[in-house]
Amino acid sequence: MKETFYQYIQELQDTITSKLEEVDGKAKFHQDLWKRPEGGGGRTRVIQNGNVFEKGGVNISAVHGALPKAMQAYFNVGDVDFFACGLSLVIHPKNPFVPTVHANWRYFEMYDKEGQIVDSWFGGGQDLTPYYLFEEDASHFHEVCKTACDKHNPKFYPEYKKKCDDYFHNAHRGEARGIGGLFFDYCKKSDDMTMQDWYDFVTEVGDSFLEAYVPIVERRKHLEYTQEHRNWQEIRRGRYVEFNLVHDKGTLFGLKTNGRIESILMSLPSHVQWVYDHHPEEGSEEAKLLEVLKNPKEWL
Amino acid sequence: MKETFYQYIQELQDTITSKLEEVDGKAKFHQDLWKRPEGGGGRTRVIQNGNVFEKGGVNISAVHGALPKAMQAYFNVGDVDFFACGLSLVIHPKNPFVPTVHANWRYFEMYDKEGQIVDSWFGGGQDLTPYYLFEEDASHFHEVCKTACDKHNPKFYPEYKKKCDDYFHNAHRGEARGIGGLFFDYCKKSDDMTMQDWYDFVTEVGDSFLEAYVPIVERRKHLEYTQEHRNWQEIRRGRYVEFNLVHDKGTLFGLKTNGRIESILMSLPSHVQWVYDHHPEEGSEEAKLLEVLKNPKEWL
Repeated sequence: MKETFYQYIQELQDTITSKLEEVDGKAKFHQDLWKRPEGGGGRTRVIQNGNVFEKGGVNISAVHGALPKAMQAYFNVGDVDFFACGLSLVIHPKNPFVPTVHANWRYFEMYDKEGQIVDSWFGGGQDLTPYYLFEEDASHFHEVCKTACDKHNPKFYPEYKKKCDDYFHNAHRGEARGIGGLFFDYCKKSDDMTMQDWYDFVTEVGDSFLEAYVPIVERRKHLEYTQEHRNWQEIRRGRYVEFNLVHDKGTLFGLKTNGRIESILMSLPSHVQWVYDHHPEEGSEEAKLLEVLKNPKEWL
Repeated sequence: MKETFYQYIQELQDTITSKLEEVDGKAKFHQDLWKRPEGGGGRTRVIQNGNVFEKGGVNISAVHGALPKAMQAYFNVGDVDFFACGLSLVIHPKNPFVPTVHANWRYFEMYDKEGQIVDSWFGGGQDLTPYYLFEEDASHFHEVCKTACDKHNPKFYPEYKKKCDDYFHNAHRGEARGIGGLFFDYCKKSDDMTMQDWYDFVTEVGDSFLEAYVPIVERRKHLEYTQEHRNWQEIRRGRYVEFNLVHDKGTLFGLKTNGRIESILMSLPSHVQWVYDHHPEEGSEEAKLLEVLKNPKEWL
């Protein structure tokens, strides 16, 4: 399974970066290969200062070895070996009317002293962070998520939509990071699902990413905007940074387990603002977004 | 002691904000009074978009009640009552040649069920975060710190200088946040020091703040700078954000114990950049700063 899935995310990285370069029309992804001293490594691809994409990364990695101490405590296991691979992407567009997107698909194995797999699971998801709310964009994104889920189990979309709202929550602000999407973790072998079934589901979601995001980008990338729209986008990007640095488990694990810092923090937007006690005007488009972030809703 | 110290920080807040307004020559501090539902409150003063100061806060608070769960675990105590008061300031100047400064002086009491004080201590310090290194500025700041310390105990400066380097360390970057200063905590009654002695020491440091910082601001605030200097400042401010959101205990406690978010996060700079895998040119002024941050040195 690990070879199959790693092969899949390598190809998916190629597909996604090619398509995003085409949409951008100017910037190309810069590639960095890196090795992890304790085992494994990754292929980081970053795009900066494009026509459409201000900053973004589409990264894959496959790492293995002794499970770092911080993760032993988290998983409540002893001194075991592990393998983990995944694709992580975050795209911050320049135009404030084009939403930021995040996606991740990953596979994890844990071994006993004899090298036998004692546990394995998939995780991942995709979620959208708009700066201005276009309900049709939110519905489109969720519709694609639901279609991918429904092919496997009609219970998946409502369950993973809710998990996404719960996870990408800036608790200290009482706000969602964005308008959600899917989030799933610990997808393990069960009576209903073999690991192959989970593989089919996770790759279905991975394959749906471009369909979920690109039409939204195409619809909004040419809209005119003002410095006020940019300011609001940069203030909201501050909330994105707050979530990633304060709450996001992946980021914090990376930082605390000697991950490649630049690959982890490619998720942070290029230009960000913090304004003391900023509140949008009542009834404004900015306030309309906040309303939805404070009270996550059903989009379908 | 709690009334005496709270009186002191109220007056110190006035002294510091008046002087900084005078240095700025344009912006005034905006004041927000706030109450903590569980007991106490604060007086937040924020300056924005000045001639000299782009964003900064000089805040005092005095809070009390049942010790929040997160702090019980941290202090390894049970369900006790507490009182805490302090002054916290962070000043982010506009000109990249003027350093950011942070300072904090605080007093803590813990009570048993009968309301008797079972423990009390002072903490605090002040530290400087330059974007370009002027050795004479770093030496001046440390000289003022040392003079304040030496009046109380010649061991304090070396000890608290080292604690400052150790604490304000962006471990995930292998860099200091800035060029340090003083950091002390759990300053409790001992054979050598009564609580009154600690009060005298902490207020000595508090009284030294303007002398430590203002001459540096005056020397640098009129220096001409380019967009490249600003870019570097904004990238370094990103490291400041990383430290405060990932490592700073005060910030994280605030966020996790229902503190007033806007008063806590006034510490974040207004304009910030993250550039993927940014490295200054070898031999540049930017590289010279990094060198000192990677290898903290003695300034005196």
